[in-house]
Amino acid sequence: MSSAATPATDPDHLWSVTEHLEDILATVHPLEPIELQLLDAQGCVLVEDVTVPLSLPPFDNSSMDGYAVRVADIAGASEEFPAVLTVVGDVAAGQAEQVQVGPGEAARIMTGAPLPPGAEAVVPVEWTDGGLGEGPVSGMRARSASPEGATGQVAVHRAAEARAHVRAKGSDVKAGDRALAAGTILGPPQIALLAAIGRASVRVRPRPRVVVLSTGSELIPPGGELATGQIYDSNSFALTAAARDAGAIAYRVGAVADDAETLRSTIDDQLVRADLVVTTGGVSVGAYDVVKEALESVGDEDEEGAGIEFRKLAMQPGKPQGFGTIGPDHIPLLALPGNPVSSYVSFEIFVRPAIRTLMGLTDVHRPTVTATLDAPKALTSPAGRRQYLRGSYAEGRVTPVGGAGSHLVAALAQADALIVIPEGVESAEPGTEVEVVLLG
Amino acid sequence: MSSAATPATDPDHLWSVTEHLEDILATVHPLEPIELQLLDAQGCVLVEDVTVPLSLPPFDNSSMDGYAVRVADIAGASEEFPAVLTVVGDVAAGQAEQVQVGPGEAARIMTGAPLPPGAEAVVPVEWTDGGLGEGPVSGMRARSASPEGATGQVAVHRAAEARAHVRAKGSDVKAGDRALAAGTILGPPQIALLAAIGRASVRVRPRPRVVVLSTGSELIPPGGELATGQIYDSNSFALTAAARDAGAIAYRVGAVADDAETLRSTIDDQLVRADLVVTTGGVSVGAYDVVKEALESVGDEDEEGAGIEFRKLAMQPGKPQGFGTIGPDHIPLLALPGNPVSSYVSFEIFVRPAIRTLMGLTDVHRPTVTATLDAPKALTSPAGRRQYLRGSYAEGRVTPVGGAGSHLVAALAQADALIVIPEGVESAEPGTEVEVVLLG
Repeated sequence: MSSAATPATDPDHLWSVTEHLEDILATVHPLEPIELQLLDAQGCVLVEDVTVPLSLPPFDNSSMDGYAVRVADIAGASEEFPAVLTVVGDVAAGQAEQVQVGPGEAARIMTGAPLPPGAEAVVPVEWTDGGLGEGPVSGMRARSASPEGATGQVAVHRAAEARAHVRAKGSDVKAGDRALAAGTILGPPQIALLAAIGRASVRVRPRPRVVVLSTGSELIPPGGELATGQIYDSNSFALTAAARDAGAIAYRVGAVADDAETLRSTIDDQLVRADLVVTTGGVSVGAYDVVKEALESVGDEDEEGAGIEFRKLAMQPGKPQGFGTIGPDHIPLLALPGNPVSSYVSFEIFVRPAIRTLMGLTDVHRPTVTATLDAPKALTSPAGRRQYLRGSYAEGRVTPVGGAGSHLVAALAQADALIVIPEGVESAEPGTEVEVVLLG
Repeated sequence: MSSAATPATDPDHLWSVTEHLEDILATVHPLEPIELQLLDAQGCVLVEDVTVPLSLPPFDNSSMDGYAVRVADIAGASEEFPAVLTVVGDVAAGQAEQVQVGPGEAARIMTGAPLPPGAEAVVPVEWTDGGLGEGPVSGMRARSASPEGATGQVAVHRAAEARAHVRAKGSDVKAGDRALAAGTILGPPQIALLAAIGRASVRVRPRPRVVVLSTGSELIPPGGELATGQIYDSNSFALTAAARDAGAIAYRVGAVADDAETLRSTIDDQLVRADLVVTTGGVSVGAYDVVKEALESVGDEDEEGAGIEFRKLAMQPGKPQGFGTIGPDHIPLLALPGNPVSSYVSFEIFVRPAIRTLMGLTDVHRPTVTATLDAPKALTSPAGRRQYLRGSYAEGRVTPVGGAGSHLVAALAQADALIVIPEGVESAEPGTEVEVVLLG
């Protein structure tokens, strides 16, 4: 999108939500991959196929605590007529010394320990007398307290087939298999697999760094004392939280006064740590709309794709919007309107998909469902505008919360959905089906 | 739960998953609330009702960029016969100086700026000539470039009723209203509201600090070189990631060798930063099961509720489990089995609800749905055990992924659901309905 290439010469032209979103997503590209430590890569998108370097398990091993035996030695064994074997030692997981199991012999073996040479199967300790010379036992005595358990004799009460209770080398994954495909989102189970195959770090798209700043000389930080005409800055808090919720590393710069030079230099300062800049306020038709004033002319006309374009959208709330790229690295910037509900809805519709595109995700939008409208009267919407009303969704039904006013932040806090009234619809009757965007 | 009060004298007794979970949730209590800065409280549970200290908006203000006027002055105005008013100044948001609007006068006003004394309504700038003496305009000239816009005359082309484009003081919330109820989870919209009413910090239950350690002399960290009989530690990575996913601040301690004394002193060292300790491995019936060995005797028999109890559960995977409290502060500790799939399933079924209970959430479990089993053959399950099989869920149908082996971490990484085969069921036929736990 370049204001030089496709100038929006008519300031009253209304762009559709779809057009604006398409322009944004055509400009924002997935971030360059970096190598991250496994736990730092949680929630990130893998950028390459990961191949298994070694088979898992890497060796035949026991799936039980018991005795490693030769099958012929225990054929026909029963509690009445047990097979009595000589215990030649312990095989514990991670133990260095090797034990060899010969005819008439057994090695006491722990879950996960390698099947020792000579042994063909494992009998669980519960199928034996545990070396105590009495009936079946329910477990082994601790090695530290009873070292003699690794010696003496054991009576085995049941036969077992070859490979019984043995996990074969490579039965989980084999060397050369593809463990995970490029594009996989790394959650706990994927991190489990990567660790299991020995990967300490992986190549992923990093979380985008999003700089959030609000503008307005009337804004003071929460906790302060309000003078006449002042209000608390809520947008920079809300959008920082929303950016984190979308998966970003978000920096809240806070509120900047309505002065174009201050705003421009604040943004310039922040570009070093930004993959995306989000501003609120100052984008409409007022005489103090400094975001528009400061950024409208940043585009280098000789440079394709640089510059911020301000538009009116066929959208309510959220009519005035700015978008483009800024600085020598062409960092994407979204300039949202300043009303709290307008900025929040704009974030959900435009910024969240941009963040998720930067992350390399393919599913960048909130889920939408069709729901039955549960309302005391028809919802009205201005002709030719796509309206987003706050709603509460449950089990296929949606109820409007609060009114259409873009300053109704109290109602927003009770909503968990946006009710979409399309451009061509001026009234949605109770009981009809409406499109609903599910938040959170 | 106290092993002194209700001793599990029969080591072979099988406890149900439900009994074990109930015992855990009866012992784990929500953390004591603390005051957190707004953005640090994201995702936390509010512990008190928050009352609105001041009405929002705090003053009557303009919802448009336009002119603040007296209604009588613009009665009957049209583009052909405009009402021409004297512009007495600008009213910008956050501006200190007051402007008074008298008969025949108008003040240029910006969105969010207080309605000046004398004015009764706002006409949008698009309903005027913007002071340029020509036709209707689409916006104001920037104050910085054209300061004369705050003076001169403006022609208004349409009448407006009293209060038109004015947001009334208190129309969003009124002082004394309840903004948010105790128990609310703080997402971006709730943070927006708290900031808007001036709250810089709130009283919430903090995120629990969860210490994760795996045990096993065979474990080496990913990235290292495997010697014979060694495998990579995956549990400490998987469960740290899973704890973060559940909302915790998780610390990965890593793998501890199978030595009871080392393990006990490692755990003791970590208690200072733990609201919950999770261990993996060493809980079964083997001679080297050091978690059991190190923790079985930590309970002070004179002290109600102290001590770790080890149980066999009617569960697959996940049969051996330990649970109790440890140290002078009675920190809850869950000792999970060491097989990667066992530990992950145990985390989902027992640890995640414990973490969410510590956070003060009431909805602590993963959502479950009923789904049609899509499988080439019947799924079998041992009698009297609740089995959790890995599955892939979509649109009301679930397909098993991989086999029942508890070491199949590769299959786990492809799953997004757990298929539950209840205790009383030994075979689930394709096409029948099964219970499914949705992960993630």
